[in-house]
Amino acid sequence: MIVILKKNPNPEQVQGFISWLEGKGISVHKSIGVNETVFGLVGDTASLDIGLIAALDIVEDVKRIVEPYKDANRKFHPEDTVIPVGNTQIGGGTLTIMAGPCSVESEEQLVGIAKAVKASGATMLRGGAFKPRTSPYSFQGLGEVGIQYLVTAKQETGLPIVTELMEISQIPLFKDVDVIQIGARNMQNFDLLKAVGRLDKPILLKRGMSATYEELLMSAEYIMSQGNHNVILCERGIRTFETYTRNTLDLTCVPVLRKLTHLPIIIDPSHATGRYFLVPPMALAAVASGADGLEIEVHQDPQHAWSDGGQSLRPDKFDKLAGMLMTMHQFVQTQPIREWE
Amino acid sequence: MIVILKKNPNPEQVQGFISWLEGKGISVHKSIGVNETVFGLVGDTASLDIGLIAALDIVEDVKRIVEPYKDANRKFHPEDTVIPVGNTQIGGGTLTIMAGPCSVESEEQLVGIAKAVKASGATMLRGGAFKPRTSPYSFQGLGEVGIQYLVTAKQETGLPIVTELMEISQIPLFKDVDVIQIGARNMQNFDLLKAVGRLDKPILLKRGMSATYEELLMSAEYIMSQGNHNVILCERGIRTFETYTRNTLDLTCVPVLRKLTHLPIIIDPSHATGRYFLVPPMALAAVASGADGLEIEVHQDPQHAWSDGGQSLRPDKFDKLAGMLMTMHQFVQTQPIREWE
Amino acid sequence: MIVILKKNPNPEQVQGFISWLEGKGISVHKSIGVNETVFGLVGDTASLDIGLIAALDIVEDVKRIVEPYKDANRKFHPEDTVIPVGNTQIGGGTLTIMAGPCSVESEEQLVGIAKAVKASGATMLRGGAFKPRTSPYSFQGLGEVGIQYLVTAKQETGLPIVTELMEISQIPLFKDVDVIQIGARNMQNFDLLKAVGRLDKPILLKRGMSATYEELLMSAEYIMSQGNHNVILCERGIRTFETYTRNTLDLTCVPVLRKLTHLPIIIDPSHATGRYFLVPPMALAAVASGADGLEIEVHQDPQHAWSDGGQSLRPDKFDKLAGMLMTMHQFVQTQPIREWE
Amino acid sequence: MIVILKKNPNPEQVQGFISWLEGKGISVHKSIGVNETVFGLVGDTASLDIGLIAALDIVEDVKRIVEPYKDANRKFHPEDTVIPVGNTQIGGGTLTIMAGPCSVESEEQLVGIAKAVKASGATMLRGGAFKPRTSPYSFQGLGEVGIQYLVTAKQETGLPIVTELMEISQIPLFKDVDVIQIGARNMQNFDLLKAVGRLDKPILLKRGMSATYEELLMSAEYIMSQGNHNVILCERGIRTFETYTRNTLDLTCVPVLRKLTHLPIIIDPSHATGRYFLVPPMALAAVASGADGLEIEVHQDPQHAWSDGGQSLRPDKFDKLAGMLMTMHQFVQTQPIREWE
Repeated sequence: MIVILKKNPNPEQVQGFISWLEGKGISVHKSIGVNETVFGLVGDTASLDIGLIAALDIVEDVKRIVEPYKDANRKFHPEDTVIPVGNTQIGGGTLTIMAGPCSVESEEQLVGIAKAVKASGATMLRGGAFKPRTSPYSFQGLGEVGIQYLVTAKQETGLPIVTELMEISQIPLFKDVDVIQIGARNMQNFDLLKAVGRLDKPILLKRGMSATYEELLMSAEYIMSQGNHNVILCERGIRTFETYTRNTLDLTCVPVLRKLTHLPIIIDPSHATGRYFLVPPMALAAVASGADGLEIEVHQDPQHAWSDGGQSLRPDKFDKLAGMLMTMHQFVQTQPIREWE
Repeated sequence: MIVILKKNPNPEQVQGFISWLEGKGISVHKSIGVNETVFGLVGDTASLDIGLIAALDIVEDVKRIVEPYKDANRKFHPEDTVIPVGNTQIGGGTLTIMAGPCSVESEEQLVGIAKAVKASGATMLRGGAFKPRTSPYSFQGLGEVGIQYLVTAKQETGLPIVTELMEISQIPLFKDVDVIQIGARNMQNFDLLKAVGRLDKPILLKRGMSATYEELLMSAEYIMSQGNHNVILCERGIRTFETYTRNTLDLTCVPVLRKLTHLPIIIDPSHATGRYFLVPPMALAAVASGADGLEIEVHQDPQHAWSDGGQSLRPDKFDKLAGMLMTMHQFVQTQPIREWE
Repeated sequence: MIVILKKNPNPEQVQGFISWLEGKGISVHKSIGVNETVFGLVGDTASLDIGLIAALDIVEDVKRIVEPYKDANRKFHPEDTVIPVGNTQIGGGTLTIMAGPCSVESEEQLVGIAKAVKASGATMLRGGAFKPRTSPYSFQGLGEVGIQYLVTAKQETGLPIVTELMEISQIPLFKDVDVIQIGARNMQNFDLLKAVGRLDKPILLKRGMSATYEELLMSAEYIMSQGNHNVILCERGIRTFETYTRNTLDLTCVPVLRKLTHLPIIIDPSHATGRYFLVPPMALAAVASGADGLEIEVHQDPQHAWSDGGQSLRPDKFDKLAGMLMTMHQFVQTQPIREWE
Repeated sequence: MIVILKKNPNPEQVQGFISWLEGKGISVHKSIGVNETVFGLVGDTASLDIGLIAALDIVEDVKRIVEPYKDANRKFHPEDTVIPVGNTQIGGGTLTIMAGPCSVESEEQLVGIAKAVKASGATMLRGGAFKPRTSPYSFQGLGEVGIQYLVTAKQETGLPIVTELMEISQIPLFKDVDVIQIGARNMQNFDLLKAVGRLDKPILLKRGMSATYEELLMSAEYIMSQGNHNVILCERGIRTFETYTRNTLDLTCVPVLRKLTHLPIIIDPSHATGRYFLVPPMALAAVASGADGLEIEVHQDPQHAWSDGGQSLRPDKFDKLAGMLMTMHQFVQTQPIREWE
């Protein structure tokens, strides 16, 4: 961390600041220029309150030069993380396609969709059993029964399953779930992050609607700091002033996160756009930008879906899209798309 | 809910739509104009998925005309809610001043601040025992011990205490807490909302960093729908493009929420601005706009605070501010500020 | 336009409202349902002030059902607009690649870059002669001399040229410019839009940093309403809370604008991201999403560029990228990417 | 400016960087710490491209420590700027109340409103003759005739007039206008800023919808750098995700700008909120926060206003509000509200 002092600072306050830092185990390297005095702080600066230092009378400005995340940082882990799931893996040059309904509605519905998406090329089945809904009066998901249906669909198709966990006490119900999803609204539910950090299952961590890249990585760090290093990042749209789409899909996250972290990156164009006809072009763009996979909503009968029907693709459209995505992925694999820096 | 159909819609699809609605207990009133056919939907439209309807082939547009919240809606509860806390009350023309440190650090620190802020006119003591921190490596709060110190400070000063709950399993520790705070990052932690909705304590619900007014009220509705109607809303800044301040304080929420809901409204200028010298003018502006109270961080020694020292006022500055706030409140009470509509 | 009245509205006010509308040449079709009275307004509703109507005592809500743009609206012009420029064209299945330096610096520099980008496959030369800079102390562009250098480079390479116009009085200097660019900061400089609407040159209209899709199309409408229908839309990033990138590239604009308008859509990943290593993946994603072309900054020596060097590609990297873009475009042309609705 | 080098940078590149800087007249002061090498750059760093430096191979990070504006900077001009207008002044402890219709509609209308607002206590008359409208089909203002009516109203009441300038060629028409307004959409129309910078009239500069404080001050700097130091800043709401209000009023700008600049600060609650019933509480809050004045829309008959009727106050409501604002201002003057730092 670099601290730039004001001109002619009060020497007593400077000494007090140095003592305070040293009391925290931080060593201070002074660089005295003609116009500025700059302190380089060495030690566990991740625990320093940058806002507090910025507010000191003697301080002109302060700047971190090391990212505050460690386990998730590519600088310290240069190799891509590859996460095995069932017979497949996430990352490492594969294209993960998680497909299925927003909500699990019935065993018949779910098994039907699972068979259809598998036939089209999906590598995992997604479906919500516990649903975070803005309104307490909306359908809140089938809960435990929904998870049972997911397990049945997995048995029938061999597809690994991914579904959302909303509350620590639900964890025991997720023992047969392959990948646990943490939703955007819980991205900074820190107790939940710590709890899944103690599990040995992959965690699909969705970016909060107004979370910066750094905050997303800090939430990954919460999970990883508890021992669980199998974290998959997922962009699902951020909140901006534009209201035509439900959210604004920030695809630039793919090359940015690729640089900052070694964790795999998945894109969810269904929630990001909120409209089914925007899903295919944005899914193709995601693969072109280098994403490791996609999470796509598919429903046999979107008009009668219990949630988010407006953004679901019918199986026939998904089938066409999945073929294009796989062709696009093969094409991208032949291109030197990660050699720009 | 109003549904506007496209011109010359497929009659079979129109009939299918009507049947689907009626199957959900919604009755459909058709209004056929020269250029548009408009359906008025009557019944429990709060449970309809507006996005799904908008995506139907035959639908041009759809619009809710009743807010999706009921218990929090001023239309159905015209009188202001007044919430008794200890010997004081929140709302009803009073000015609530919750003051104290961001984090509880020690009994001595807390009791010292509590006595100081009480002497200055604060009506409640705030202090964090469980702290939501972006980094897993930052101080996470004293936890249960912190709550004990709060209870001690309450016994010593008589000030009711408000502190943040982060996780359902912590609820038993909060039995002597007067007001439970739900933080901005948990505003859509729906299981937590439901859990505090079953308590009989007032809940201070902070607006999420990118939550709309309607989403804030829907989260209040989650609590109220479980039976707990003592909800206090708190604006603490929203996330925008401006980075000089930590967040952007949206003071217009005061008259907007006053119109939409009967619940009291508290402003937290400390977290919103992130800089101590911005707290007094914004606190004064909050009272001028008609807010029911403030949450303000006070620390004897902000430089050594364990969190958010940069936004804390020293007790002497708080004392000066509290006096001005009370004078401003008396002035505002004499003005007809709520007679504009 | 649909106006929903409040329950039991004052009949005199209703009559006054109807008279006022009729006085503006709007006819009112009443649809009286059980719970709502809905007025359908027919006529030139584009000129009605929706905010004013919403504020009337008797009005519950109001909603436009026809977009307020006409010339730019695909509903009224279903065929894609294709714009001829020199020997090439923009739109109609071609891939336009506008490449060149942010600022024109010298004849030698510009001609050198022009030859390089032409050899790599660029179809047009871009370069700024008049530069909108946040600071009055930054380099403001070579002005008229810069345009002369552009014309020279055009003569040497045959590449059509695109450059930014900032002020009406500069128009005569642009007589040999092939495409006039209107920058993001001038997207709502309405007098400038009207002035270029009276020219017979193609206009590249950049989306403002916080402009909605509808506002972008309304600005296109300003140009088109004066007679100039050769408008090309350009997304160059919107302003959000994320600060790692200069702006947030909103690629979803491609399929959205494709649906709303018949005008071609160009993506500028250089300004959107502000970092050169993010340009190639986002350029590829743009082509995958169906964009008609790209605007990319190229500089022989970004370190010594007079503006925006940090986002410029060196000619060798651009050469590699251009090849990939053309391959991607050919691939996309074979895929049914526009058949989703 | 502070530049932090990467560890073990290429010495040749470091030397090239130093030479490049020295070639621009910047002297480099090296501070070599144990873990970092920091360069302090001294000279006219305002002209350096910070993005370019950040993109250099050898650079870890770069940070400005002097604001890039000079004339507008309070550091160099500690005293508040007070701007005389007619018999009144803006700033210096006065409360400026600019009131009037959004658009000038007729001489009778304007003179009527002018007399009414003067009687209520307004100190200036506002009214739009040239109107920036999102749609080319909306009323664009009376133009020159509108300015004549404003001049007539000034003669009849003695109120100085403020009205918006949209285009350089209109300047001669503004010779009898007391304060020229530059609208939010033109805040970065740099040619227009330079042109009004050469006039000797006060300029009311409105903050762009997504402009940061620094960008607003840089636009003020454009005007001031041409010699016109009579600039008044005006906040009129920023664009955020919240759609209930037209924009989000960022009142915190008052104490922030007070610290950063010596220029007076005016708040426009009418455009910020877009709804008349939100204007009075936010106007009161603005005065409480320390603003130098307000711009408020008033119309005899908002329902028939030619623009923005929904946000206009009727004269009787304005009369009540103006009284409260003046009382609030007197109260605030007695309080030590500017002694926090």
